[in-house]
Amino acid sequence: QYSSGVRKVTLIPGHGIGPEITVAVQKIFEAAKVPIAWDEVDVTAVRGPDGKFGIPQKAIDSVNANKIGLKGPLMTPVGKGYRSLNLALRKEFDLYANVRPCKSLEGIKTLYDNVDVVTIRENTEGEYSGIEHEIVDGVVQSIKLITEEASKRVAEFAFQFAKDNNRKKVTAVHKANIMRMSDGLFLRCCREMATKYSEIKFEERYLDTVCLNMVQDPSKFDVLVMPNLYGDIMSDMCSGLVGGLGLTPSGNIGKNGALFESVHGTAPDIAGKDLANPTALLLSAIMMLRHLQLNEHADRVQDACYQVLREGKSLTGDLGGTGTCSGYTNAIISKLN
Amino acid sequence: QYSSGVRKVTLIPGHGIGPEITVAVQKIFEAAKVPIAWDEVDVTAVRGPDGKFGIPQKAIDSVNANKIGLKGPLMTPVGKGYRSLNLALRKEFDLYANVRPCKSLEGIKTLYDNVDVVTIRENTEGEYSGIEHEIVDGVVQSIKLITEEASKRVAEFAFQFAKDNNRKKVTAVHKANIMRMSDGLFLRCCREMATKYSEIKFEERYLDTVCLNMVQDPSKFDVLVMPNLYGDIMSDMCSGLVGGLGLTPSGNIGKNGALFESVHGTAPDIAGKDLANPTALLLSAIMMLRHLQLNEHADRVQDACYQVLREGKSLTGDLGGTGTCSGYTNAIISKLN
Ligand SMILES: CC(C)[C@H](C(=O)O)[C@@H](O)C(=O)O
Ligand SMILES: CC(C)[C@H](C(=O)O)[C@@H](O)C(=O)O
Repeated sequence: QYSSGVRKVTLIPGHGIGPEITVAVQKIFEAAKVPIAWDEVDVTAVRGPDGKFGIPQKAIDSVNANKIGLKGPLMTPVGKGYRSLNLALRKEFDLYANVRPCKSLEGIKTLYDNVDVVTIRENTEGEYSGIEHEIVDGVVQSIKLITEEASKRVAEFAFQFAKDNNRKKVTAVHKANIMRMSDGLFLRCCREMATKYSEIKFEERYLDTVCLNMVQDPSKFDVLVMPNLYGDIMSDMCSGLVGGLGLTPSGNIGKNGALFESVHGTAPDIAGKDLANPTALLLSAIMMLRHLQLNEHADRVQDACYQVLREGKSLTGDLGGTGTCSGYTNAIISKLN
Repeated sequence: QYSSGVRKVTLIPGHGIGPEITVAVQKIFEAAKVPIAWDEVDVTAVRGPDGKFGIPQKAIDSVNANKIGLKGPLMTPVGKGYRSLNLALRKEFDLYANVRPCKSLEGIKTLYDNVDVVTIRENTEGEYSGIEHEIVDGVVQSIKLITEEASKRVAEFAFQFAKDNNRKKVTAVHKANIMRMSDGLFLRCCREMATKYSEIKFEERYLDTVCLNMVQDPSKFDVLVMPNLYGDIMSDMCSGLVGGLGLTPSGNIGKNGALFESVHGTAPDIAGKDLANPTALLLSAIMMLRHLQLNEHADRVQDACYQVLREGKSLTGDLGGTGTCSGYTNAIISKLN
């Protein structure tokens, strides 16, 4: 259907500002002649045969066929029967590693200028098991589930990622002093994997200590690997150090597929007004290009984006500018060379 | 035994640098004529009749009698049968609220100059339940336990604390989007308590969002209340914003007792060399004075301490100075007026 070099990618524009930032990415990729064909699907929650809301079958089929997708922010309706569709997607495709690079960007002023860390989050279990019970009235337990299998594969992913990306160190983040068995198991898997990657430095640190050290001196860290909830926290915190969720990409990687997404919200207040910032989605799409080994295209688009950020002229409101989404998009296109 | 105004306080110097920073506090309090008599006890782990290591009975008796204590850092030996003595103390005396104020200090340069937050951490349950099982080989569960009783009392503590200390807002920090039942229960207890303190603003925020917002603009927050692990993380992170654990105090409060402690480590590398920084223990002791309603004494010692920090002349190595513990102590004493 497509010329041999063209990769088909599932595109989930999402809700709120999703469609307009998606168009921005599409325009930039088209101008850059990135060899991608988009297979656009809708992921608004639909009621399944069991009465629960879930992902439309068409979207599932598309990701299963293409094995790779890009998605904008999804709205999760509040109420009984609804679960986060973001989580549902990670589960459905067993996307076991969530990769979030946070790097200080020239032109984006924050308190920090030396951040360059990648959090790698176990994405399928831990505190996100969804298993909870009310034992007796007013006494609730939630189960944190840690398995050797999931811990091993995310540990391996982290070390391999470090190796492939020329990173020097992997830090395992844990509270095995408190959760001796669960975090203990996770930690042991990391330690074992470390022995197979002797060229990568390995260290283990308590989560609380990492939080403290990270805000004091992020340059202490490189690649970090950790259970689900810790990764949720740490990736947001690191994102805050470099300018927030509007500027940081995310990739969910599994054995049989990968989904790249901006992790900011749907921003309904500015939706449809051409005011949204497409950077996080664009950087996620660039991560996707690297995953597809389209590194030259990735570099080219990234250079253009960084240049516009550095010059600081066409920035959107969230970055302190007065620009529009389409203006910013065109500025990036004009820098492609 | 003591003149009517004198309060007896259990003193646990602890290990490593514990004894020398404890002496520093004692000297300062003596010079300031603080009406306190110390009941010094040792808390090195002893093997109980059940073979497990625990807190010496003498220490337990002393805290039970005095209902208030000050403690330095404790070393927890690594190995089977040992549990953190810090945690054991919190459990033994049911010290259900951990209060950690973090405030930017003049003279201590960090990236932030507008931090003034207090984290209030549920201190008895949650992820610290200690209940863990290996279900089958390589599959472990840890149980997070949330009860209405413990959630209510810490929520009440937080609002009452806000009220007593002229604070404007309480933020409940949670992941009830993921742990709907457990964090949901905690959150409901906070909401209910909020209705009884209409003069205090209440808001609820996701833990990841708070981490992100905190590093971007700490002035958004005031008093924060949250389950055990979240408090562990958040308090360390906030401490990092204002200079680290060497500068931030901590109080563990229960119905029948209270224990104030520096939460930094024992620093064995510099122990006994007169190089330790006693500030965190001193500020914890000052918190204790306020708890005893010795506010004038608290203010007086605090003013002297702040003045020495501001002038920056007698600071210890961890604060970039070349001073000694005893020199810093004497500098504070010389500022008492
Ligand atoms: C939306 C929410 C369920 C999700 C999470 O908690 O993982 C988000 O915070 C994220 O990090 O992608
Ligand atoms: C020493 C450790 C068990 C403890 C904890 O995890 O609570 C510490 O980090 C703290 O915050 O007091």
